[in-house]
Parts: sequence; structure tokens; C-alpha cells
Amino acid sequence: MRSVIPPRSGTAFTLQKGQTLTVIDPEGEQVSDLVVFNHKDIREVISSGRSLDYASKLYLTTHDLIYSNRSNVMLRIVEDTVGRHDFLLTPCSRDTFRIIYDDPEPHRGCFGNLEEALKPYGVAADQIPVAFNCFMNVVFQPTGVFTVEAPLSKAGDHITFLAEMDLIVGLTACSALQSNNYSFKPIEFETHLS
Amino acid sequence: MRSVIPPRSGTAFTLQKGQTLTVIDPEGEQVSDLVVFNHKDIREVISSGRSLDYASKLYLTTHDLIYSNRSNVMLRIVEDTVGRHDFLLTPCSRDTFRIIYDDPEPHRGCFGNLEEALKPYGVAADQIPVAFNCFMNVVFQPTGVFTVEAPLSKAGDHITFLAEMDLIVGLTACSALQSNNYSFKPIEFETHLS
Repeated sequence: MRSVIPPRSGTAFTLQKGQTLTVIDPEGEQVSDLVVFNHKDIREVISSGRSLDYASKLYLTTHDLIYSNRSNVMLRIVEDTVGRHDFLLTPCSRDTFRIIYDDPEPHRGCFGNLEEALKPYGVAADQIPVAFNCFMNVVFQPTGVFTVEAPLSKAGDHITFLAEMDLIVGLTACSALQSNNYSFKPIEFETHLS
Repeated sequence: MRSVIPPRSGTAFTLQKGQTLTVIDPEGEQVSDLVVFNHKDIREVISSGRSLDYASKLYLTTHDLIYSNRSNVMLRIVEDTVGRHDFLLTPCSRDTFRIIYDDPEPHRGCFGNLEEALKPYGVAADQIPVAFNCFMNVVFQPTGVFTVEAPLSKAGDHITFLAEMDLIVGLTACSALQSNNYSFKPIEFETHLS
């Protein structure tokens, strides 16, 4: 069954060890923020710092591993039709829109959407980590300066993760203008027994 | 007064709003991992994802801000004689040495040192974030692949932070071979009223 996340919203669900999660960009150029917690102990959470350190690269793709803050593998990327995702930046938030966009009435962003969706699982806002931002295209200059460019994903592109433990998943259709080439679109996802 | 952190160890202390912390590399080519918590509420902690997002660059230096997971400014960099530090990678740990160095009897690393030093302040291991790694020299290729190179710091180089709130600080002399050009040296620090 395929589920739809409407533009600028988010959801949460459980994923059992051995299940796969496929995140689909149905129209193209739409980012989806993914955060993951150990279902048995939500203090264990994905860690960008550990995952990037162990991979020695910024762009993770097929065969790469997403580690927790306890250095356990939480997700394994088993398929990826795009090859460009971000694992450096936090979910967009009221503060993002205030600080970066100078927006007088800021949207709650992926952060607010994740906060609401994860609340029933006992996850507090402070526990939301740097997300794995599916399809987000961050381009780095040798000086270290980076820019957020239009996603490389076309309609129907997707990335599939295999759960290596029982998980709580938070997933969004991202709310930041720049990340989504200045239009807000839905995200779709499917879960399967692998 | 100048304090010394012996090689491969760490410490923790409080820093009041308005005080400065200067981290000094006394011999050169030695990394120091810095983590910071709000003294009044340790659930508020430095966030690499927010800080890099708001700065739009990987290398922070003089005049740049270190934000918390709540998007409040925790530290302001007020002086920096090196200009090359890392804010992407987690403190080295038993798992780092196991996974990256394949070490049969891994050292507890900066992570273990920070865990012990921060315990009296009520900080649990799971709460230790991606550190601001003073003097750590991570070089990025356009492909996103990165390497950890010898620090650019020479003997006596330093970086000074101004506390923008009352803080608990964890600070180490880093324990990872690659980060410190394959020798373990001390780190020194001073705190002052600004």
C-alpha cells in the first residue's frame, strides 16, 4: 500500500526489523526529511556525525549504512535512483524561516511537523536529530561554503531503506522553499517485508 | 589561570554567560573536541546541523555563531588564529577505533572521556552531540568524499569563544591517531571575564 504525505506536512509510523521503507518523490524536486528512533529505546537515534564519519563521505547512497548515536546500524540503503541526499542539516523549523528567510509569520516546518507526529511515541522536540534529508541537494565548494540547490530527483525517483532494528520513523514532505525548488509537493512511501 | 588537559583525556567545567573560553594548542597539530550544554537545562545542546545551516558553510571561524538544538546562540567565536575546525563528525569512541581503525583493544576515545567528565553534571552518553572539533582539519572533495588531514594549528594557536548563556562545557585532548597527525599531545585552556 502506498501512503501520501501532503505538501508541508509529516507523519510517523513503526517499521520492524527486516522491513523496507521506500520514499518516493512522485512529482520530482521534492525533499523528504527522515528521522529514526529505536522503538525499544527512543534515546537511540540516527547520528549524522557517526554515519558520515564511518562512511568518510557526505553523500550516502546504495549499500551505505545509517548508524545510531550508539554506533549501531539502524538503516541500510538498499536502492537509490538519485544518489544525492543530505545528512548534514537539521529539519527546517520556525527558526529556520525566521533566521534564513526572515519570514514574519514562519511556518512550523518539518521540525514542527515531526514534533507533532512523533509526540504519540514519546519523542520530545529536543530529541529530534539532524535528519537524513532524502533528495535534498546540498552542493559544497572547496572553501566549505555550501548552497541548497534544486533536488536532482525526477517524478517517480525513490530511495529504499532496510530496517536493521525495530524502529519509529518520522517522515515529511519538506516545507522549505529553497530545498524544493520553490514549490511544495507531496511525498509518497511504501513499507514492505523484504 | 591556564589549565592543561593531558593527552587522550578530557574534562568538564561551567562557563558563565559573558565569560570567554580560549582553547589553546600548545604544541601544534592537536585536536580538541568541545561540547556545550545549557547549564539550566541540559536538554539544550550545541547543534552542528543548525549552526552549519544558518552559516551556510562547513568551516566556522571568527564572528560565527554556534547554535543550540533550540536555535539559540550558545557560543560566539570571537578570535581564531587557525580558521580550520570541524563541526561535522562525532567524538572518537570505542566504536570509532573498532570500525575505522579495526583496533582489537579500542581506547574509549573523546566520547568515553566526555562521558566520564560530564556524568557529574547529569549528562548521559546518549546526550553527547556532534562536537565542535577545534583544530580538526577535514578536507572535502567535490564528490563529497572527505579525509582527515593533519591540523593546520601551530604551537600556541588558539580559538576563543564567548558564552551567550550559562553553560556546561566538555573539552578533550583528542585520542584519534589520524586527527592529530599520529601523535597524542595535550590541550590547554583559559576562561576569562570578557
